[in-house]
Amino acid sequence: MEIVIIGAGNVATHLSKALLQSGNNIKQVFSRTETSAKNLAAELNTSYITNIKQIDNNADLYIFAVSDNAITKLAKKIRLKDKRVVHTAGSVPLSIFKQAKNHGVFYPLQTFSKNRKIDFKKVPICIEANNPDFNYELLELGHKLSDSVWQIDSERRKQLHLAAVFACNFVNRMYVLAKELIVDKGVGYDILHPLIKETAMKAISMDPKKAQTGPAVRNDTESLEKHIELLSSYPEIQHIYQTISDSIRLTNS
Amino acid sequence: MEIVIIGAGNVATHLSKALLQSGNNIKQVFSRTETSAKNLAAELNTSYITNIKQIDNNADLYIFAVSDNAITKLAKKIRLKDKRVVHTAGSVPLSIFKQAKNHGVFYPLQTFSKNRKIDFKKVPICIEANNPDFNYELLELGHKLSDSVWQIDSERRKQLHLAAVFACNFVNRMYVLAKELIVDKGVGYDILHPLIKETAMKAISMDPKKAQTGPAVRNDTESLEKHIELLSSYPEIQHIYQTISDSIRLTNS
Repeated sequence: MEIVIIGAGNVATHLSKALLQSGNNIKQVFSRTETSAKNLAAELNTSYITNIKQIDNNADLYIFAVSDNAITKLAKKIRLKDKRVVHTAGSVPLSIFKQAKNHGVFYPLQTFSKNRKIDFKKVPICIEANNPDFNYELLELGHKLSDSVWQIDSERRKQLHLAAVFACNFVNRMYVLAKELIVDKGVGYDILHPLIKETAMKAISMDPKKAQTGPAVRNDTESLEKHIELLSSYPEIQHIYQTISDSIRLTNS
Repeated sequence: MEIVIIGAGNVATHLSKALLQSGNNIKQVFSRTETSAKNLAAELNTSYITNIKQIDNNADLYIFAVSDNAITKLAKKIRLKDKRVVHTAGSVPLSIFKQAKNHGVFYPLQTFSKNRKIDFKKVPICIEANNPDFNYELLELGHKLSDSVWQIDSERRKQLHLAAVFACNFVNRMYVLAKELIVDKGVGYDILHPLIKETAMKAISMDPKKAQTGPAVRNDTESLEKHIELLSSYPEIQHIYQTISDSIRLTNS
């Protein structure tokens, strides 16, 4: 396939590289930020534009891998009707591209960072399209990149994105707070690494509800009170401790 | 070393097996619950007791791997003075065994479950003792089991245990909630596995503060409001969403 990539951020970068590696051709890269467009185009050995009006009109597929707001703004500036377009966003409905005869969603459910390699074969890709033929083509494209391709409609994708906030963003916040608590006492963060890894691996190998440990699930009020007391100089963390412990106790009562 | 294990739960089980494998001898296992005592003793090819008064008085080391409350209760029932005793608890001070001439702490910082194998070589062990000689012996014992042995006093250990609640128990709670959200919409939990794994691995390879992604850190109020709205039928999860998002935004403002 001849593909135009709109965006040059983390998703655009990881996805376009995986597309190239699986035998597709990246015709063009767009980003408003010239450095980003230039760098990604260089990595993909292709050309770039910073003005969306200069978009190549003869590609097989246009992938919008930009922020939720930018999708609408950029889509308004190009002729969508005869193009085959998808976006990569978790919470943006399929209907955003309704002017295009063939439109869809190609949502990779993973956290992408600049300096981390991702094995795209293991990234779940969620597919949705406005018609069966285009849907089939997107599934096919998905299978070229990944062993984990899912048919997910807009409503379920929205919920999946919300769940990902808990499983990724909020989990990471817990790591941040844990690190803060021990670094304040002069203990290095790496002492927590084996625990972080095992906690994740355990939740993958079994039902996380059954994996729950700690004072809250045991309803060990003495330890809970000691911890609340220990956190008296961290009111924000104390509030989080109380909220999540209550949530754990609630389910088990 | 000839060791008596007091307790037959997850920590006692994993620790005593690792001790045996590293060339120590488990003289005896105690548990109030006969089945637990019997099963663990069988695994270790040793004897067991369910009455603490019958404890073998000639061991080199007594390891209390029981709940915080049980440590005090059990310690009262045996003659500590001439024994070398340690406990494995995060939040119990060294001084709990002050009647014993040689007392210490041997705290493995990991989450242990019945059916999961743990590579003990990678489990951080936190050591503390009331005198340098015993401390040295505990460090030596620690190094036989693990490549990660730390000298940690009671105050820092307490804080470490609190941090572990965030990095393990609270993280697991986020997995539980994420699962609930998608299973409710008919999507299987395993779609989140690669995200869970990558989020943990990322936080190990870089500063979690720099790894933070999601609507809250971007201060993407539109997405945050949409998520709060989506959670209107889950008031408890909605409250957690708000609390953690506020915490993320607070740090970045």
